[in-house]
Amino acid sequence: MTTQELLIKAKNAKAKLNMLSVDEINGALEAMAQALVDNTDKILAENEIDIENARGTVSDVMIDRLSLSPERIEDMAQGVRDVAKLPSPVGRVLKRNEPIKDLIVEKTSVALGVVAIIYESRPNVTSDAAALALKSGNVCVLRCGKEAHRSAAAIVEALQSGLEKAGVSKDLVLLVEDTTRQSANELMTADGYVDLLIPRGGKGLITACLKNATVPCIQTGTGICHIYVDESADIDMAVNIIENAKTSRPSVCNAEEVLVVNKNIAKEFLPKLKERIVDNRKENPVELRLDTEAQKIIDGTPAGEEDFDTEFLDYILAVKIVNDVDEAIDHINTHSTGHSEAIITSDKASADKFTRSIDSSSVYVNASTRFTDGGQFGLGCEMGISTQKLHARGPMGLEELNTYKFIIRGNGNIR
Amino acid sequence: MTTQELLIKAKNAKAKLNMLSVDEINGALEAMAQALVDNTDKILAENEIDIENARGTVSDVMIDRLSLSPERIEDMAQGVRDVAKLPSPVGRVLKRNEPIKDLIVEKTSVALGVVAIIYESRPNVTSDAAALALKSGNVCVLRCGKEAHRSAAAIVEALQSGLEKAGVSKDLVLLVEDTTRQSANELMTADGYVDLLIPRGGKGLITACLKNATVPCIQTGTGICHIYVDESADIDMAVNIIENAKTSRPSVCNAEEVLVVNKNIAKEFLPKLKERIVDNRKENPVELRLDTEAQKIIDGTPAGEEDFDTEFLDYILAVKIVNDVDEAIDHINTHSTGHSEAIITSDKASADKFTRSIDSSSVYVNASTRFTDGGQFGLGCEMGISTQKLHARGPMGLEELNTYKFIIRGNGNIR
Repeated sequence: MTTQELLIKAKNAKAKLNMLSVDEINGALEAMAQALVDNTDKILAENEIDIENARGTVSDVMIDRLSLSPERIEDMAQGVRDVAKLPSPVGRVLKRNEPIKDLIVEKTSVALGVVAIIYESRPNVTSDAAALALKSGNVCVLRCGKEAHRSAAAIVEALQSGLEKAGVSKDLVLLVEDTTRQSANELMTADGYVDLLIPRGGKGLITACLKNATVPCIQTGTGICHIYVDESADIDMAVNIIENAKTSRPSVCNAEEVLVVNKNIAKEFLPKLKERIVDNRKENPVELRLDTEAQKIIDGTPAGEEDFDTEFLDYILAVKIVNDVDEAIDHINTHSTGHSEAIITSDKASADKFTRSIDSSSVYVNASTRFTDGGQFGLGCEMGISTQKLHARGPMGLEELNTYKFIIRGNGNIR
Repeated sequence: MTTQELLIKAKNAKAKLNMLSVDEINGALEAMAQALVDNTDKILAENEIDIENARGTVSDVMIDRLSLSPERIEDMAQGVRDVAKLPSPVGRVLKRNEPIKDLIVEKTSVALGVVAIIYESRPNVTSDAAALALKSGNVCVLRCGKEAHRSAAAIVEALQSGLEKAGVSKDLVLLVEDTTRQSANELMTADGYVDLLIPRGGKGLITACLKNATVPCIQTGTGICHIYVDESADIDMAVNIIENAKTSRPSVCNAEEVLVVNKNIAKEFLPKLKERIVDNRKENPVELRLDTEAQKIIDGTPAGEEDFDTEFLDYILAVKIVNDVDEAIDHINTHSTGHSEAIITSDKASADKFTRSIDSSSVYVNASTRFTDGGQFGLGCEMGISTQKLHARGPMGLEELNTYKFIIRGNGNIR
């Protein structure tokens, strides 16, 4: 099936999905979960081939991300069941007005329509994304990277068999067959077919979407996260938070990449930080990349300009000294990707200025940036983390996969 | 001042605006309103020159739109005062979560930052847009068409004098000096400076924005609105609604352009409609553009294909006969601009299918499409009507000029 044929199928499936009840959608999700378990052997067989093909060409970390097991498939099924149990975001009345007698205006949440997701090599994203899209009333078009494509195809086949068993159209979840760049470009320019495109992947994919997409698109993921240590910070708290934000899982987007320190606390604070995250760490000591002022206080690698614009995703931390909270805010708003930033302070005025002025999705006072996550923020699940301002910002849950329309019911009313 | 210099000013003003209280913003709005009244003579003098320059080159309707009077300026001032009285959309806590003890996550509404508006020849849009942007915490960059530019400049000068009197930066409201296409293009591509661009104008402007804009942008305005008369419709109600939707103000975007009629009611309904909106109308009888089936029932102009994709903004109505509600939905979803559509029916199942399936901002049952308006929908005001699905859909009020961020307050929490 060509990508264009698949998009026509998706568009036609939208009409059927609009008429399903919440119970029918939940039933379909339960059947999808069961079908994953029932097709474990088939999925593992295809996954084995993906792994064989990938071995030698990608890193061990990638092989691990790619690998499925009966337990991982059960986890995927449980993920789908968990999504089924969440409240439906569709049909919420967000606002109600009665401008004249017997004319009722209801701003009501509705599905976007067709949601397309471009992702890379994690096979489990296939069922996660399909479940979130369907639960929020959307037809799901998936486009998986070539390394995981056989696994994804087996997963989608299982999900579709579940949909059919539940008595709904199997076209509610569709996988693009073509894994070349062409199919990604076709999705980016599928005006009238794709209502929302979510690129989940590295910087290259996001940039290509920003440049080429003519369909509505949400930037996700890139996180150059900053932590600013204010003059009034509790030093132990600051050390703990930075250790957590930098080293607990450096490969994720909510990990810290840049430390900004007030000059009046730097001399006392930086040596203690270095002791904790460099000198006393047995595994993976952090490489500090220091600006000129920080180099006068502790040892480390001299930082280049690009170090303040790099998502390291590694045990590396750029360090900059500033005169005050205003300079910190300026630096962060200039260099951040709008993801997550934190201030460590005991001064209410500094905290207030920071939370008002920092132009990012998630702004922390005295906590680690690692909390930026749909589950932690009470959304119940997550489709990705938006770093743009329109429509959805920060972790996206089910509600963010909806739009709204005004439904107006009258009795012959004219204006 | 070049457009680039102005954009830098706007960006710098954002930081100051973030720190203002609701009372300070309301005080600034009151001072802006007073300054409009105080500068009536200056504004009228500049407006006189605009009108002189425009006379002969534009229609009488345009001259009327362009013309100010002491009363119209007082109305503009009252409009600004009305906006000051609306509740502030900024700082609403939209969701709250406490994932672990003492870590409070608040999803909080915040200003977008810099909102740019490109508009044409109505001078009153200048103060309306400035007031809505400022009330919602945004710096406002205005780019007015050349016909009204002297008037707009005098209005902005007055507004800025009000801002200064209120003790806030006059850069919160800025007018682009250049009225050539270049400045519009500069705004469309001002990445990092313009957080939202709203084009208010004709199809050409909207299309140029869609094609060229790299900044976030909201499509507004174009309305090819449909009314579907179902088999079960109350015929008198249908005639009344269509008369209102087509003839009460045909030049606006929520006026009806296409009538879709169920074949089982067409023979009885169409002659009655024609009697009302064609034969018995003394002024401006409606020109009916009929598809082949409708031509068999009443007289009118044979419709060409393009008549079903045209925003006439005139006393012209395209008429199409369909077999059932499904065919009506298909036709409307294919040809509408996503603005406003209505069904006239006494059948609950048809109404339900129509409201679920029609993919437009405003979907009516038994009422005129003319109600699509920020005031009627209970938003208190209106910055335009979005026909897209992301971020804002339908009439945009103050809340739609906000985004949100997550503000997380902790006590040293790590994950």
